[in-house]
Amino acid sequence: MLTATRYPVVTADEAAAMINHGDTIGFSGFTPAGAAKEIPTAIARRAKVEHEAGREFKIGVITGASTGDSLDGELARANAVLFRTPYQSNKYLRSAINHGETRFFDMHLSMLPEATRYGSLGKISFAVIEASAVSEGGEITLSTSVGASNTFCNVADRIFVELNEYHSSELKGLHDIYEPKDPPHRREIPVYRCNDRIGSTTLKVDPKKIIGIVKTNRPDEVGGFKETDAITQKIGENVSSFLANEIERGRIPKSFLPIQSGVGNIANAVLGALGKNPSIPPFEMYSEVIQDSVIDLMRSGKLTFGSATSLTLTPAMLEAVYNDLPFFKERILLRPQEISNHPEVVRRLGIISINTAIEVDIWGNVNSTHVMGQNLMNGIGGSGDFTRNAYISIFTCPSTAKGGAISTIVPLVAHLDHSEHSVQVIVTDQGVADLRCKDPVERAREIVDKCSHPDYRDQLSAYFENAKNGHTPQTLGSAFAMHQAFMEKKDMRGVAW
Amino acid sequence: MLTATRYPVVTADEAAAMINHGDTIGFSGFTPAGAAKEIPTAIARRAKVEHEAGREFKIGVITGASTGDSLDGELARANAVLFRTPYQSNKYLRSAINHGETRFFDMHLSMLPEATRYGSLGKISFAVIEASAVSEGGEITLSTSVGASNTFCNVADRIFVELNEYHSSELKGLHDIYEPKDPPHRREIPVYRCNDRIGSTTLKVDPKKIIGIVKTNRPDEVGGFKETDAITQKIGENVSSFLANEIERGRIPKSFLPIQSGVGNIANAVLGALGKNPSIPPFEMYSEVIQDSVIDLMRSGKLTFGSATSLTLTPAMLEAVYNDLPFFKERILLRPQEISNHPEVVRRLGIISINTAIEVDIWGNVNSTHVMGQNLMNGIGGSGDFTRNAYISIFTCPSTAKGGAISTIVPLVAHLDHSEHSVQVIVTDQGVADLRCKDPVERAREIVDKCSHPDYRDQLSAYFENAKNGHTPQTLGSAFAMHQAFMEKKDMRGVAW
Repeated sequence: MLTATRYPVVTADEAAAMINHGDTIGFSGFTPAGAAKEIPTAIARRAKVEHEAGREFKIGVITGASTGDSLDGELARANAVLFRTPYQSNKYLRSAINHGETRFFDMHLSMLPEATRYGSLGKISFAVIEASAVSEGGEITLSTSVGASNTFCNVADRIFVELNEYHSSELKGLHDIYEPKDPPHRREIPVYRCNDRIGSTTLKVDPKKIIGIVKTNRPDEVGGFKETDAITQKIGENVSSFLANEIERGRIPKSFLPIQSGVGNIANAVLGALGKNPSIPPFEMYSEVIQDSVIDLMRSGKLTFGSATSLTLTPAMLEAVYNDLPFFKERILLRPQEISNHPEVVRRLGIISINTAIEVDIWGNVNSTHVMGQNLMNGIGGSGDFTRNAYISIFTCPSTAKGGAISTIVPLVAHLDHSEHSVQVIVTDQGVADLRCKDPVERAREIVDKCSHPDYRDQLSAYFENAKNGHTPQTLGSAFAMHQAFMEKKDMRGVAW
Repeated sequence: MLTATRYPVVTADEAAAMINHGDTIGFSGFTPAGAAKEIPTAIARRAKVEHEAGREFKIGVITGASTGDSLDGELARANAVLFRTPYQSNKYLRSAINHGETRFFDMHLSMLPEATRYGSLGKISFAVIEASAVSEGGEITLSTSVGASNTFCNVADRIFVELNEYHSSELKGLHDIYEPKDPPHRREIPVYRCNDRIGSTTLKVDPKKIIGIVKTNRPDEVGGFKETDAITQKIGENVSSFLANEIERGRIPKSFLPIQSGVGNIANAVLGALGKNPSIPPFEMYSEVIQDSVIDLMRSGKLTFGSATSLTLTPAMLEAVYNDLPFFKERILLRPQEISNHPEVVRRLGIISINTAIEVDIWGNVNSTHVMGQNLMNGIGGSGDFTRNAYISIFTCPSTAKGGAISTIVPLVAHLDHSEHSVQVIVTDQGVADLRCKDPVERAREIVDKCSHPDYRDQLSAYFENAKNGHTPQTLGSAFAMHQAFMEKKDMRGVAW
């Protein structure tokens, strides 16, 4: 490992001691991949001590997206979070947010870096960045994610580096660091193909800004996903058949287009199904996250390149990648989230976006963030960045949840993150609803007939088929009746209008 | 006027006779500016004759955005519209849509051209395009708008040109026609400044595709706007003060950034206020529409350049521009709507977007399209194209409507077009709510305190201040109670929760 000697080596607790109540910190991490681990845990320890002594101690926490338990979990349990943005997925932090104990505001992930530079997030006092190497000249080789680390290092005057020996010492070349200038001086983002390299292999900072290096040796806290089950497998097959048919009809080029795919079981199933479908040619990804299933597809040759901002792999899979690094360095680039999710590139490349919904309504609106319209699940993430500019935008979900007591197809989403104007295709285990060029009533029929569970079809049709109120025959008095039924008696079935 | 002689000159009725029931036609027009006038009116005449003879006769109508009464009005009154997309603003067509008699599906305006090329809109049988000149070689000089005319001419095999002598014969040079290639061959849209010219002055088509020229001499059907009143003037001043303060705080560059401004009275008032504010330097617009107030600002020197897709001027103002054309040709470019509204350019230039809302909710979501969630007003237009990628996104509305019986600030918008993730600033006559970096409850307080009418403040605060349900304390059972009160007793006041 290339470890420069000019920087002070400090303990995590020494670093945490330099941080003050009220400071805002930009932490590395996009998913648990490459997230800062030691210093946030030490800050949590310090917060507990301060709180026990009767002193206030909370910090503003900005990251790339979600992180690991050593960051969001530790800080949440220590009640040390003044505010948090953007996406998170930690159960302790989520609980604090939903109980009104922690301020959380959500942002499109591509916009976080520029908002940080433009100043609306206030002063960033420190950047805390995990790295696999640091040179004397201030060249940081990041680890398994880029996220917004480049921006945090640019705007902060003081940088702590967590130098994590767990990662391969050969990662240089995996990253492509490019940060656009701000208006009115911004130029094009010169990515024309998924594998275009446009920046530098390292994150270059003024070495005087690196005020401490914390040495560590810890894996990313990436959990495993559940195995694909019959429902998710069916969703995957439905997506794959739909896309194969679009190629057949000449509405997607025969050479196919880059795929963006969200994170989780459904995304795994979708990628698996694309991999198995002989009508889908070998393809590329331009996405946020590379997860285990992507690695399998790369080995098989079905996936020829993956551009993302994080390598979110289970420890065993990451080890396998590190053992075969030359193969994967030819096939993977990690970029800043501002670039992996940039609307300019998404629109230009013609990305097919595939994201997961919590619920979808009969008009084609999608709820990605709030259960029953109230409790935050994780956040909008990059789903808006990709959906809004996709060549074809797809949302997936199982047709029911909670053993059938919840229909994910509802008269009106209880929280709306993606509007009917931007959502083009809905896929459930039941089938595929193609909403393009359909008016609201046609969309409602398509979604109910193709995507809703048979237990709910009559009920959903009854909601709109006899309504005679306008272009969108919404009945405001009963639009949430199914949600209310669930909240009252834990079952959406049997609602009459 | 440069009029080629190689093309057959036909009457509008002869052209209409060549169109069949079920054909989809792409018409020029973005607002009434540059809209086809003679042929759609003739199609409406033909439809009436066919209907009287007991035969079906309806056509699919695709345009740039809204058009004039000769197009949308005539076709709607003749019941000749099979489907219509995108935006419209004609009262007869709106009524047919809201009574379920005409299919209308809405699209982001920047996406219409690529959707047309990608094939999801089906075959476009004819392009019907207003022009100010046509050369022997198939070079069409458009009139007062570009809209999607270039795309319609590219994809259709047969083109009718309405050669309108009303327009100046010197318009060549006003337009900048550029159509991107489709993925995977698309390159950057090379607009780096508002006045960058990237395409050709004329729309070049295969001359064999021009199957008929209809000669006419008719003005655009642009109506006047109401004069600015005290309410809209206050909104304009609030926007202007907010932006001046952002410059002062260093969050907008001192040289300012390009403005996108919607259409109508509030937009006029905003531009007027920006023009008068000495803290706002001379600026440029990168917008959809140039309306009368823009011309005044150009003459005064406060507006140095305007890029748009239409020149939507009242006849007197258009005449004045035509009389001083060299001055204005140096200061105006009309581009295809795919370019005027392109997310790549909007994000790159750092546009400040200012659009009008029908209603806004306390969480920062915006309804731009549906009154009471049911009846279509006009459509989303370009508001999503600009809002989603703006440097700062602003929505304006008066704090009340219908003499105070409607609060435009509500607990939950009855139709959601722009989500809390993309809406940054709300401005009413009451004040300015800056939503950036605020969590849902903070946003609710900011919007109610700064933007809602005093008659509604206590009522709105009571909705969320005592609710204890999650990150977004929405109460689904009463979220639309104010809308229901209006529908039942024509007044939103006095709702208790």
